[in-house]
Amino acid sequence: MFANTPKPPYYAVIFTSKLKNSPQGYDEMSAHIEELIKGQDGYLGMESARKDIGITVCYWKDMESIKKWSENLDHQEAKKEGKERWYESYRVRISKVEIEY
Amino acid sequence: MFANTPKPPYYAVIFTSKLKNSPQGYDEMSAHIEELIKGQDGYLGMESARKDIGITVCYWKDMESIKKWSENLDHQEAKKEGKERWYESYRVRISKVEIEY
Repeated sequence: MFANTPKPPYYAVIFTSKLKNSPQGYDEMSAHIEELIKGQDGYLGMESARKDIGITVCYWKDMESIKKWSENLDHQEAKKEGKERWYESYRVRISKVEIEY
Repeated sequence: MFANTPKPPYYAVIFTSKLKNSPQGYDEMSAHIEELIKGQDGYLGMESARKDIGITVCYWKDMESIKKWSENLDHQEAKKEGKERWYESYRVRISKVEIEY
């Protein structure tokens, strides 16, 4: 449910999105990416919720791990599809977690 | 819908929560706190979604603004109520946004 993150510092990628009305193939790709990300070096966990907008926060050991994940080919394909077919709009924010309680 | 944040750096407080089954008074207090936070110095915006868990991300100019908000008496009262009556569990992560796109 909650990501079981270590003592800070670590990184959080905050992905906020608004889906199009009929995002074909979105659920399948989402599940595939979620499976894939779990095997990545430096991946610490994920938290996700959607109502009017979706917020997904992925936690990472360091910036290097985030960079490697951004270069993953399946992930790049998903991002391309996302831009073209699923998301009306989105924001990505990369942040360094300094305090957790 | 999305928070209209400035060019980084700025701060993000990531609040992840699981509500109890019947959180009496939660909606009212939520609305009150949302109104109150808008008037705070250094407040930059908020994004929120809830499905199985709730994720609320509040954006702030700097750590000083976050500290001041944490000292606000109505906010302290809400946090106390939240711990006792509304949340089964929660996490707070304070992070510095370095990149946005």
